[in-house]
Amino acid sequence: MNSFGRIFRVHIFGESHGECVGITIDGCPAGLVLSVDDFTADIERRKPGAKGTTPRKEDDLPIIKSGLFNGKTTGAPITILFENKNTRSADYEKLRAVPRPGHADFTASKKFGGYEDYRGSGHFSGRLTVCLVAAGVIAKKLLRNIEINSAIVEIGGEKDLEKGLQKAIDAKDSVGGIVECTVKNLPAGLGEPFFDSAESLLSHAVFAIPAVRGIEFGTGFAAAKMFGSEHNDALKDTTGSTFTNHAGGIVGGITNNNELVFRIAIKPTSSTPIQQKTLNVETGEIENFSVKGRHDLCITLRVPVILEAVTAFVLADLMLLEQKIPRVIST
Amino acid sequence: MNSFGRIFRVHIFGESHGECVGITIDGCPAGLVLSVDDFTADIERRKPGAKGTTPRKEDDLPIIKSGLFNGKTTGAPITILFENKNTRSADYEKLRAVPRPGHADFTASKKFGGYEDYRGSGHFSGRLTVCLVAAGVIAKKLLRNIEINSAIVEIGGEKDLEKGLQKAIDAKDSVGGIVECTVKNLPAGLGEPFFDSAESLLSHAVFAIPAVRGIEFGTGFAAAKMFGSEHNDALKDTTGSTFTNHAGGIVGGITNNNELVFRIAIKPTSSTPIQQKTLNVETGEIENFSVKGRHDLCITLRVPVILEAVTAFVLADLMLLEQKIPRVIST
Amino acid sequence: MNSFGRIFRVHIFGESHGECVGITIDGCPAGLVLSVDDFTADIERRKPGAKGTTPRKEDDLPIIKSGLFNGKTTGAPITILFENKNTRSADYEKLRAVPRPGHADFTASKKFGGYEDYRGSGHFSGRLTVCLVAAGVIAKKLLRNIEINSAIVEIGGEKDLEKGLQKAIDAKDSVGGIVECTVKNLPAGLGEPFFDSAESLLSHAVFAIPAVRGIEFGTGFAAAKMFGSEHNDALKDTTGSTFTNHAGGIVGGITNNNELVFRIAIKPTSSTPIQQKTLNVETGEIENFSVKGRHDLCITLRVPVILEAVTAFVLADLMLLEQKIPRVIST
Amino acid sequence: MNSFGRIFRVHIFGESHGECVGITIDGCPAGLVLSVDDFTADIERRKPGAKGTTPRKEDDLPIIKSGLFNGKTTGAPITILFENKNTRSADYEKLRAVPRPGHADFTASKKFGGYEDYRGSGHFSGRLTVCLVAAGVIAKKLLRNIEINSAIVEIGGEKDLEKGLQKAIDAKDSVGGIVECTVKNLPAGLGEPFFDSAESLLSHAVFAIPAVRGIEFGTGFAAAKMFGSEHNDALKDTTGSTFTNHAGGIVGGITNNNELVFRIAIKPTSSTPIQQKTLNVETGEIENFSVKGRHDLCITLRVPVILEAVTAFVLADLMLLEQKIPRVIST
Repeated sequence: MNSFGRIFRVHIFGESHGECVGITIDGCPAGLVLSVDDFTADIERRKPGAKGTTPRKEDDLPIIKSGLFNGKTTGAPITILFENKNTRSADYEKLRAVPRPGHADFTASKKFGGYEDYRGSGHFSGRLTVCLVAAGVIAKKLLRNIEINSAIVEIGGEKDLEKGLQKAIDAKDSVGGIVECTVKNLPAGLGEPFFDSAESLLSHAVFAIPAVRGIEFGTGFAAAKMFGSEHNDALKDTTGSTFTNHAGGIVGGITNNNELVFRIAIKPTSSTPIQQKTLNVETGEIENFSVKGRHDLCITLRVPVILEAVTAFVLADLMLLEQKIPRVIST
Repeated sequence: MNSFGRIFRVHIFGESHGECVGITIDGCPAGLVLSVDDFTADIERRKPGAKGTTPRKEDDLPIIKSGLFNGKTTGAPITILFENKNTRSADYEKLRAVPRPGHADFTASKKFGGYEDYRGSGHFSGRLTVCLVAAGVIAKKLLRNIEINSAIVEIGGEKDLEKGLQKAIDAKDSVGGIVECTVKNLPAGLGEPFFDSAESLLSHAVFAIPAVRGIEFGTGFAAAKMFGSEHNDALKDTTGSTFTNHAGGIVGGITNNNELVFRIAIKPTSSTPIQQKTLNVETGEIENFSVKGRHDLCITLRVPVILEAVTAFVLADLMLLEQKIPRVIST
Repeated sequence: MNSFGRIFRVHIFGESHGECVGITIDGCPAGLVLSVDDFTADIERRKPGAKGTTPRKEDDLPIIKSGLFNGKTTGAPITILFENKNTRSADYEKLRAVPRPGHADFTASKKFGGYEDYRGSGHFSGRLTVCLVAAGVIAKKLLRNIEINSAIVEIGGEKDLEKGLQKAIDAKDSVGGIVECTVKNLPAGLGEPFFDSAESLLSHAVFAIPAVRGIEFGTGFAAAKMFGSEHNDALKDTTGSTFTNHAGGIVGGITNNNELVFRIAIKPTSSTPIQQKTLNVETGEIENFSVKGRHDLCITLRVPVILEAVTAFVLADLMLLEQKIPRVIST
Repeated sequence: MNSFGRIFRVHIFGESHGECVGITIDGCPAGLVLSVDDFTADIERRKPGAKGTTPRKEDDLPIIKSGLFNGKTTGAPITILFENKNTRSADYEKLRAVPRPGHADFTASKKFGGYEDYRGSGHFSGRLTVCLVAAGVIAKKLLRNIEINSAIVEIGGEKDLEKGLQKAIDAKDSVGGIVECTVKNLPAGLGEPFFDSAESLLSHAVFAIPAVRGIEFGTGFAAAKMFGSEHNDALKDTTGSTFTNHAGGIVGGITNNNELVFRIAIKPTSSTPIQQKTLNVETGEIENFSVKGRHDLCITLRVPVILEAVTAFVLADLMLLEQKIPRVIST
């Protein structure tokens, strides 16, 4: 259930307030130069600290437990742990009676019979996204000159991001946003018609990122308002380049050698300082409820690097399947 | 590549202008009462004939080749064929030099080295969606009192659907649309955090439907403009019912006992009668191009029943995994 | 449940006395030259007719329903049907009360709640092995100069096969046998340590052949009686060739560039003309029971080509994973 | 590649002389009471120390990193590490030029381009079987009153095990053996015809155990010498009990409510103190070679508990698929 991929496969585990979170990356080619330093930049990008993000800080040092030897991947599974040090579980234990609105507290309890680790959302925590970022770092290295970039294009309904964030701070409430991902230099031919379409695989992985509520490729929802003659992208040359790119780089489920473009919608952080009403499941009463803890006002701020990461490992897997990345990297 | 599901698994095959299209459904519980008549209603709903749909007509009679005995499923794989009778391949053969804009002609050729069956889009054809509908019929029967409904909520940018369609007819162009799917009586607890979230699995299957450009759950992209205090759905009672349903029935990747709600964006049909410019890959010249063939002005019209179908088989699979559908149906 | 493989995937369906049996082969590279004639030789080898085999004859003409265009594979799923023409279901219907010893009648009924198609063993029938043979034909073509050969090395306990068979005829009883499979020109590097060892994958597929009771690689069970100094195969040169081949071509789960060698044990055909005692599940009485129907005295006779087939598709899948077979065959 | 299972899934990682070996168990039901103490007995059984086993000793304390909360499983992935403390890598580094006969040194290097961690066989090491044992402990707890027992039935060709072992000691050579596994109280109905037959899944997992050269179910290879009338097991009553059990508890790929019985052949340990000849891949010369290091004279001694473990997790997975183990354990 916690696995994804066909050849380049990732498996995540861990809990927010347990000992660690971690990931195993299986099927990574041997011979890839890799060190702890490779993870620094992307892990820093994911970290809180900016205005609007949680004050909980973890040093997020990746501890590579397997799969690396003499500074190169071995072809065996790569397991990476991130220790949890800065946990304050007491914040959460009193919340059992009052499942937090918008959080997985209720559904987790329903599904796992109350046996789930509920501290800090346990295995449902956004903390596990640091593992996705780690897999993304490795996948990006495999993808070499393929450039993946994500950027926030809207926060709190505003294109001016500073303004959107200020709206949240002023209202003492949380806000959502839109993140766009683009991929350059992607070869044509990745993906399959129907079930393994590039969109199917990307969206599958993207909805693994907590708080994502929608995804659209190319012109996306706006395409539904266009005429066919407007939306169709005419071929410019035999490489597959088209004059326009409404399709966002995928036609018939398969990449077409144009830029891959898609956007995702992030809901406002469920934890908001504003007082809300919700059910106390023990008393059966509707209560006032207000989140203390340490949370992001705008989780969107931390999403771009995570989005790049899941995109990278989906594409690395497709590149391996299409034999465009070898099983052993010669350096 | 042409498979989907963990326990209730579907495998599709066939080409638009080959002998048939077909599907194998594996992992279906034994003992389910099933007959050819069960397929009629949904297959009729997918059929062309309405204003704006292709005049190509197939009787679309499901031919059940295996897995059924004495009017009940046996637990063995169910293979269903739909013969292709009304094919006019000559329409397509001359198009090889001019890949149709918006179609998979170019990407299919790139991927499969020119060996693909290009007639009528071959294996990429929307014709294969009749197979998805067939799997949906079986899945719906397994889901019993769980009600899945899809409806078009916008065509050509208009909520008034008749008006949207007329726009296309007037412009002699194709249009897209938005389709909404709702599911009632779905139990809480389906789906997993992260990779096998209900959204991940549903979106994976939904993007197998040709022409889908986006998907959003609950409030979807609009959630990105909301405050957390607005978006959060407060629990009403211990069944999981919430006062609002911005989440669309899924929290933390898991169904929460509210109505499941999601919407998809369908691009305008790639085949449009309007003259377009595109590349002749043989001459290297940009040419005028105009689709003859028999096509839908608005493929959206045929999507609702397909969307219900893929939703049904995703949910049936999750229900089997959660042991909410037995392996043998006692009747 | 009826699928096997990671990239080159096979899916089987059908029943002995239903309309047909069939197979879908997904993930086959595009561009492979293929015709109905390619199947003739191997299908003939599987056919009954020889002394000791069933008099039921089917013409076993493969009907290729999809995935082939202009005489080459297209990269889309290849579905092949074999019609059942020569069925005599009446033979079986009376047997419901008396599950045949050694057959799946009882277990199938237990598992599928009595809904299984019990005629001629239904989906459990050896008739489905013609589908495996068909997949093997395609896999062998992909494997080009890799030579797979199976041969019976023992029948009814006799190395002299004629003598073993005569034993059965004389005793009016059925007998089993041993079949050996060898593969020449297999490159080193196929398979993985542990779960996807070449032995794991081969044995998984081999036990899909009905009536197999054991498998051993290289020296096999005899290795358990050897000293390490005898059993170890010393390297002869840097290609991986060894002076001896007790390992049977696989070390650490991975092929080592020597001949792959393994053997399987086939039980005596469950259907034997000899009178046996077994339970009548309706009366609860132990009854005399004697098989009429049309059966093989020695199913082993038909196994070699089936064993080659499953070996071929396991190896084709591994070759694709190791990128030693391309996704598009250039001819 | 390092994963196995459909619902109850295991993923292994780690190297013999790296920091640790480990396993992630996904899909384990929530609510199972589990503690470090549960692992003690089986881990002790796997440990060296007896006559004929390696003097390398690890305390093999399972470090449960995730998936456990308040003494019960949570339904989230369970990751367990075993640290490597007692490593002496220098033993191995000098051996690069002389791949050890019978070991994976050569094939690993061929497959992974020389990037593999070669110290102590790296990821190919038998040390990873402690992870399999850990998964087995959890699976056995899920299986409750289903009793799995493995025992050595032959060592060095002798039924008298002490005698077989003495043979090795006297010859200063290594020996192999035969291990039998039986399972009592297993319900009928587990497994599928063809690809997911109980034998297919069990043998797949069993060949993940290093040094296994063969597997046989029930009467196994001896069945090939029997008449059908001897081999067939007649039903005794409607529970599925048979008068004999030549089938070993599986018919048509499906368990039949009799005792499951199978045997595996273990080759003699590749590392033997006896001097052997093999290739120096650097000089191209055949050299004398003699293993120093710390090794088992008879790896068979350590296999029974590993065999029980893989059997347990195969069966747990099948029990979950058949809904005979719930997704949440009520205690």
